[in-house]
Amino acid sequence: MANVLLVGMGAVGSIAAYTLQRNGSVVSVVARSAYDILTNEGFNLESCDYGNILNYKPNFVFKSISDAMKSKGPFDYIVITTKNIPDIQPVENLIAPAFTKNTSIVLLENGIGIERSMFKTFPDSIVISGVTLIGTTLYGKIVKHFSQDIVSFGPFINPNIEKGLQIEKAKEFTKLYSNEKNKIEYNENVKYFRWRKLIFNGAVNTTCAITGVDSGRLDMFGGMHEVSVPAMKEIVEIAKADGVELPNDIINFMVRLDDGEYAPPSMLIDVRRNQYTEYKVLLGNALEIAREYGIKTPTCDILYHLCKVIQMRIMESHGKFVLPEKRPLIDENYQIQFKE
Amino acid sequence: MANVLLVGMGAVGSIAAYTLQRNGSVVSVVARSAYDILTNEGFNLESCDYGNILNYKPNFVFKSISDAMKSKGPFDYIVITTKNIPDIQPVENLIAPAFTKNTSIVLLENGIGIERSMFKTFPDSIVISGVTLIGTTLYGKIVKHFSQDIVSFGPFINPNIEKGLQIEKAKEFTKLYSNEKNKIEYNENVKYFRWRKLIFNGAVNTTCAITGVDSGRLDMFGGMHEVSVPAMKEIVEIAKADGVELPNDIINFMVRLDDGEYAPPSMLIDVRRNQYTEYKVLLGNALEIAREYGIKTPTCDILYHLCKVIQMRIMESHGKFVLPEKRPLIDENYQIQFKE
Repeated sequence: MANVLLVGMGAVGSIAAYTLQRNGSVVSVVARSAYDILTNEGFNLESCDYGNILNYKPNFVFKSISDAMKSKGPFDYIVITTKNIPDIQPVENLIAPAFTKNTSIVLLENGIGIERSMFKTFPDSIVISGVTLIGTTLYGKIVKHFSQDIVSFGPFINPNIEKGLQIEKAKEFTKLYSNEKNKIEYNENVKYFRWRKLIFNGAVNTTCAITGVDSGRLDMFGGMHEVSVPAMKEIVEIAKADGVELPNDIINFMVRLDDGEYAPPSMLIDVRRNQYTEYKVLLGNALEIAREYGIKTPTCDILYHLCKVIQMRIMESHGKFVLPEKRPLIDENYQIQFKE
Repeated sequence: MANVLLVGMGAVGSIAAYTLQRNGSVVSVVARSAYDILTNEGFNLESCDYGNILNYKPNFVFKSISDAMKSKGPFDYIVITTKNIPDIQPVENLIAPAFTKNTSIVLLENGIGIERSMFKTFPDSIVISGVTLIGTTLYGKIVKHFSQDIVSFGPFINPNIEKGLQIEKAKEFTKLYSNEKNKIEYNENVKYFRWRKLIFNGAVNTTCAITGVDSGRLDMFGGMHEVSVPAMKEIVEIAKADGVELPNDIINFMVRLDDGEYAPPSMLIDVRRNQYTEYKVLLGNALEIAREYGIKTPTCDILYHLCKVIQMRIMESHGKFVLPEKRPLIDENYQIQFKE
């Protein structure tokens, strides 16, 4: 029986918490806005894997990482299912109070290169990658889980520590998460799955967020073919330079991923709610890797910078910075002052 | 004394109607949503050129082009100051009922290549270009006219008819429009002014509309330098291929056009109001010209297609088409059915 701390009770996190708990782990979660709901009523899960679960409550709910650590730590695993927005909230800072040398970190999050900041902050840590293909949304206390929880776990190899232990921990967690309803595999080819998913997220998710339409409309309105497909081709090239050869039909597969559905991808949902997008880990990190290998990415570069402007717009609306009432002259070289 | 029909009583059209009427022309206007206000109270102009004009009414107001033609036609000039959205409302169809062989058309509108559809529909027509640098807005019945009405008029040369007559008519209209308050010039280098203005409109206006920020924020958030400037460079190349050599500092000039101001350009205002943008004439036509000359425009192409998706989104929201409740499969090759 593992002692698990889960950070990020969103749509993915709720299913992950329920799954681990159902399988026998003791699950503590950290929740801020949902704290009252989770301690009183719990969430209602309408799950294609588990049926209708009324009033699901995690074993323990805490308001902060420190509270969780004090009361239930140390943990065997810290599972991170928060939105990954390093430009706003670096996850490694968030979980620092609960990290111990016996704790493995599970990044059940999207994006490429997301282990880099972990290894930097926790040089001897075991960090497990989880790439999920789940379809799920959370509105209020209702989790609508509409496509099977398919996850590939594997270790992000930390060169500072023994490889065998990392593999062992990743395999152990895979077992803790697996059951007869979901479809979970252990796979050491972590990069492959991350690059594969990035084809969609870096190219389609971003374009949907920028244009304000779901992936179905993006296709019907011409943006998929004219913008996202060229961007996908560039990401295929970055992956190749990074040692990952994706199958020939990968782009066609991603174009058709939501065929028959008007599916709003995550970044579009974020922009519609005026919330921060994961554009850094879904596209920005890939472009950093492209620069390291000297790969040109003209389409992705534009999408990235458009996403960045939109992120700044959202940051301003949340008071992350305040611009002078009168726009400074360009020659003044005004620098935006970000608040903590 | 000229008999003028003006179509499009928006911010620019209101100042144009007032100017022509003040200068002695008889001005009939066609108005739909503003018909009642214009016939009863009139507009209030808060004009930097003309002062505060309370309850300005055009000489005659009509609900349709046909009504205007029946009652006050034929006209010497049809002045078009509508938004130029050929994908939604082709202007040549709109004005057809009022066009005669003695009528000159004045396009006091933005964009490049906008005369092409006119010459196609009215092969022997005289079409006059008006490029304005006015700053003006219309909210309800209030026209706020905040920067001087500076217009350059000149003939779009129609190869089917005698050049001299076209020049004469353009000069005549320039006189009809000029007074001691505004700053009006006759200039045959129509293309030059249109390409010059397109540097801003095709690159900055579009990027602002896509990202949802004004040109000041676009610059401060990095989008000007990373997206709009590369797009501007491409437009400079198209213009050059089309015979227009723009000055070396044109891009820097356009970057600084709104320096010291947080200025929302027209397409951003349109998107914020969920109204159609002029992306076709402000960027699309330029890209058609680029294709004719074999100029590559990778950045502008992406901006164009993103604008197109946004336009389609706005069209759907206005009921211009209705998508099937269930998204058709890609293999069904579903074609969107547009309503008239």
